[in-house]
Amino acid sequence: MTYCLAIKVNKGLVFASDSRTNAGVDYVTTYGKMHRFVWPGDRVCILLSAGSLATTQAAVNLINKDLEEGDDAEFNLRQAKHLYEIAHYVGKLVQREQRLHEKAVEKSNISVEARFIVGGQIAGREPEIYLVYPQGNYISASSETPYLQIGENKYGKPILDRIITQDTSPEDAARCALVSLDSTMRSNISVGPPMELAIYAADSLEEPRHMSLKLASPFYKTLQKRWNEGLKRAFNRLPRFDWEENK
Amino acid sequence: MTYCLAIKVNKGLVFASDSRTNAGVDYVTTYGKMHRFVWPGDRVCILLSAGSLATTQAAVNLINKDLEEGDDAEFNLRQAKHLYEIAHYVGKLVQREQRLHEKAVEKSNISVEARFIVGGQIAGREPEIYLVYPQGNYISASSETPYLQIGENKYGKPILDRIITQDTSPEDAARCALVSLDSTMRSNISVGPPMELAIYAADSLEEPRHMSLKLASPFYKTLQKRWNEGLKRAFNRLPRFDWEENK
Repeated sequence: MTYCLAIKVNKGLVFASDSRTNAGVDYVTTYGKMHRFVWPGDRVCILLSAGSLATTQAAVNLINKDLEEGDDAEFNLRQAKHLYEIAHYVGKLVQREQRLHEKAVEKSNISVEARFIVGGQIAGREPEIYLVYPQGNYISASSETPYLQIGENKYGKPILDRIITQDTSPEDAARCALVSLDSTMRSNISVGPPMELAIYAADSLEEPRHMSLKLASPFYKTLQKRWNEGLKRAFNRLPRFDWEENK
Repeated sequence: MTYCLAIKVNKGLVFASDSRTNAGVDYVTTYGKMHRFVWPGDRVCILLSAGSLATTQAAVNLINKDLEEGDDAEFNLRQAKHLYEIAHYVGKLVQREQRLHEKAVEKSNISVEARFIVGGQIAGREPEIYLVYPQGNYISASSETPYLQIGENKYGKPILDRIITQDTSPEDAARCALVSLDSTMRSNISVGPPMELAIYAADSLEEPRHMSLKLASPFYKTLQKRWNEGLKRAFNRLPRFDWEENK
């Protein structure tokens, strides 16, 4: 499995992903799931992928091929006038790739489905994030639910629901994304390090700040330690039952 | 859906359950999912149920019927010499009930599967908790994983993984169970109040402390408020990125 999420706040976008891929529990490998396409001053597009690695790699290959073909391509990331066109395009690539293997897949009871998060900004437009379903359709985040998740999304959802609003700073949103990933990694072995993080400042149209955090990274270790200590402190301040001493 | 959990610590057992039942999103009702059977000095048995309400109600009716029949019953809760016999018995009842409706169910693409948590203590034995699968087989908690969950178990798992050990007091385990339920209720509308809580003191063989907490209950409101405040405080103490001021 996988866990990726994107958060849209007033001052920017945050993208975070784990790096664990597995074909059953006896074949576990590490693959980045964040793909960045940046043309400074013109457009920034970040993709996060979950699901069949064969399908997501094929889709990214097709995206790169269409970019190489330039204006000869039917469509590519540079031709898009709106970010939703990119979401639509990614959905089409995923559908095309899934259909190629449909019959073989039916026989072996395997899923080749893939999901993508597509986010970024095109000059003159607002920053946006989209979730692209395996069926090729897509949704964007709303002001009330300013985040999107793919993969193992349940473990890390409560902290997002408690912390994230539109007014959250991109840095706070990034810290929350890391806590959300950390909680998921602790509870589900199909999600694992390193964690990739990208923070895009709204209207910058520049390469987002990017980092890859291993378990041993000092920043990540400090974050884990302080979060655990903070949770335990919060826990110790919960109200006592009426039969307990030291109410 | 549903969310129920049981925790086994050295000094006792904790049981917690939500009360929301739904048949689709347009038929949502409130049903208790905790069933207590207590014979003071002899045995305490608590059941938590998830899944098809028809199946879980039928199983509880059969348990009560077998108790009414007393020694004439093939088996009942009072005849059990070990708690695992009760887990086995509940699994058999669930299987029997599911099979009754198997054919009708296949036609309508509905699930009549049910899961139970069975916990308690029989005089002269250790306190124990078991998870009974819809297939009728069952597992117990371990010293490394001293809790069991049924229903929507992912949202509320990270806090259990971070807090609960065998040495946790039953009261702390109960507070943790409430936080786990609260996180789940916030993130998933298929889990809802009131929350039932039972705390059994090991070797007491007495009626467990029991409470039903509504959203408006002062204890629950205080717990929610302090937990939110504590989380935000923990969050604000997370490390700054190196480009931020006030590192």
